[in-house]
Amino acid sequence: MSDIPADPRPIVLTGDRPTGPLHLGHFCGSLRNRVTLQHGHDTFVPIADAQALTDNTDDPRRITRHVIDLALDDLAVGIDPSLTTICVQSALPALCELTQLFLNLVTVVRLERNPTIKEEIQARGFGRDIPAGFLCYPVAQAADSAAFRATLVPVGADQAPMIEQTHAIVRRLNRQVGHALLPEARASIPASGRLPGVDGRAKMSKSQGNALALSATEDEIRAAVRRMDTDPDHLRVGDPGRVEGNVVFTDPDAFDPDRDTIAELKARYRRGGLGDTVVKQRLETVLLDLLAPIRASRAAWAHRPDDVRDILRDGTRHARGVTQATLDTVKDALGLYRLAP
Amino acid sequence: MSDIPADPRPIVLTGDRPTGPLHLGHFCGSLRNRVTLQHGHDTFVPIADAQALTDNTDDPRRITRHVIDLALDDLAVGIDPSLTTICVQSALPALCELTQLFLNLVTVVRLERNPTIKEEIQARGFGRDIPAGFLCYPVAQAADSAAFRATLVPVGADQAPMIEQTHAIVRRLNRQVGHALLPEARASIPASGRLPGVDGRAKMSKSQGNALALSATEDEIRAAVRRMDTDPDHLRVGDPGRVEGNVVFTDPDAFDPDRDTIAELKARYRRGGLGDTVVKQRLETVLLDLLAPIRASRAAWAHRPDDVRDILRDGTRHARGVTQATLDTVKDALGLYRLAP
Repeated sequence: MSDIPADPRPIVLTGDRPTGPLHLGHFCGSLRNRVTLQHGHDTFVPIADAQALTDNTDDPRRITRHVIDLALDDLAVGIDPSLTTICVQSALPALCELTQLFLNLVTVVRLERNPTIKEEIQARGFGRDIPAGFLCYPVAQAADSAAFRATLVPVGADQAPMIEQTHAIVRRLNRQVGHALLPEARASIPASGRLPGVDGRAKMSKSQGNALALSATEDEIRAAVRRMDTDPDHLRVGDPGRVEGNVVFTDPDAFDPDRDTIAELKARYRRGGLGDTVVKQRLETVLLDLLAPIRASRAAWAHRPDDVRDILRDGTRHARGVTQATLDTVKDALGLYRLAP
Repeated sequence: MSDIPADPRPIVLTGDRPTGPLHLGHFCGSLRNRVTLQHGHDTFVPIADAQALTDNTDDPRRITRHVIDLALDDLAVGIDPSLTTICVQSALPALCELTQLFLNLVTVVRLERNPTIKEEIQARGFGRDIPAGFLCYPVAQAADSAAFRATLVPVGADQAPMIEQTHAIVRRLNRQVGHALLPEARASIPASGRLPGVDGRAKMSKSQGNALALSATEDEIRAAVRRMDTDPDHLRVGDPGRVEGNVVFTDPDAFDPDRDTIAELKARYRRGGLGDTVVKQRLETVLLDLLAPIRASRAAWAHRPDDVRDILRDGTRHARGVTQATLDTVKDALGLYRLAP
């Protein structure tokens, strides 16, 4: 017996933490995937303000300020509220209730072993002073995934341990109730890999200050391209240059639709005879073209604050129904006490 | 500036986990205190089914079965639903939401240092496999206390670390918002101390199998008194006997209203010349008299299951309003995002 229909319409869940403007790294790693997936999938995009609090407890207003900005970024890249449910995580109490149940299904030791959490604890300098909420946030993520009955979760490669944690909890629950009550979501990790920062460092990241925001102005785009390091050994135009690990070529790989021209430019760069200025000019054009419609759409949405709020309100209302239904199903399957209405 | 009125009507919070019938130890340690306090205080008595799950995850139906039994025990001892709000913890989502916020205000190390948790981990043989929910349950308790704005929490002496944990979180929150948003609840620890088990062991406890249930039949009461150990050196009636640590005298100390007679019996026992049988007969009478009206009241309530369910439903509805209001206040004070309704 299974509660999962034989051939369900796949359910996609993927959200962001409202800690700052979305940038090219998000676009490459998840947003554009989301825009494609919303056709033919039930797609939920929670604004993860509750999760963002787990390491921003001292400055919650920072999170609050970014909630609407994040909605604008989502809308600007083409997330269509008639196809996708954009919702506010902290306004979905069923997620907290499911998290509390799930916390009983995982041990502290298991949470401490999570490689992503280990890395993030180090990156944030928590030392031994890890907020309990931070250690537990993978459980909250598992609850999100389960509550929406997600079957497909587009994430970066570094998020794989989170999906494993979700699977472990879902399996534990399914075993206890004796059937596949909740689905095991499949991770969808983009083939293109992670976008490096404009400084050439491994990952574009707000916190590293090496990100190009989707809302960047033309001047900011130009400045970012100017800043980019190329091959430090490529001193004269005639010298052969290195393409691998050269950020000026990574971005066209990710965004330039004209594959043939890129291949030709790469070959010329390797041989020698192609100057950094030419490559950078081309990249500048690609990024200006990519971001211009996003910036314009964002500005248009920003002029309709009431509509944006309505989208969040309606999306959250829909999400509330979905997540509450899952919670009720889980409670009933476990045989928990249910008060007559 | 303070959100606490200058002279508020005190708010009492005290509940039990629905893991089995309430017994004399509960009666002595908390229930009779509750019955007195409900006059002149706003009293909330949650049935802590969500907390009970933290160490009963494998058998949730056991908790479910005991929810109504616990309500019957509460009603039987004289908790008056017109004075006291009896409610079901798991039906109050604001408690989960507040718990999730509070988890960000406490470190993992601090939770691991909690002496009550350390003891209970050992007692349950969790070893390293502590469910995360179990480690975090003091935070959930802090959220309960805060959500009801409790100012007085009747607990046993062993629960003092829980109150300290609540204070630490409330202080941390109040410091962050810059004023006394939430009250620091005072613990009310009964002067009589903890009741020993019928086997003479330090604590009467369901899990130790040495408890006398409030719902015990006359035969069960008689059998329990018969089982009680007295002073092992008091072999003949004429021998002097020890009163201290003698369970046959502890129970009258807790329950016999006739102080003078007890004092006289103790003196005779110490001197020698008073047989265990006489003392036990007296104790049997005291316990039969104490429990007869409780048992009768319980039976009467058990015949009105619809009324009991209505009491739980109405109490939970009231508690939902109170706890949701606190959650909203906390969210606003922290400046969290709030979706327009």
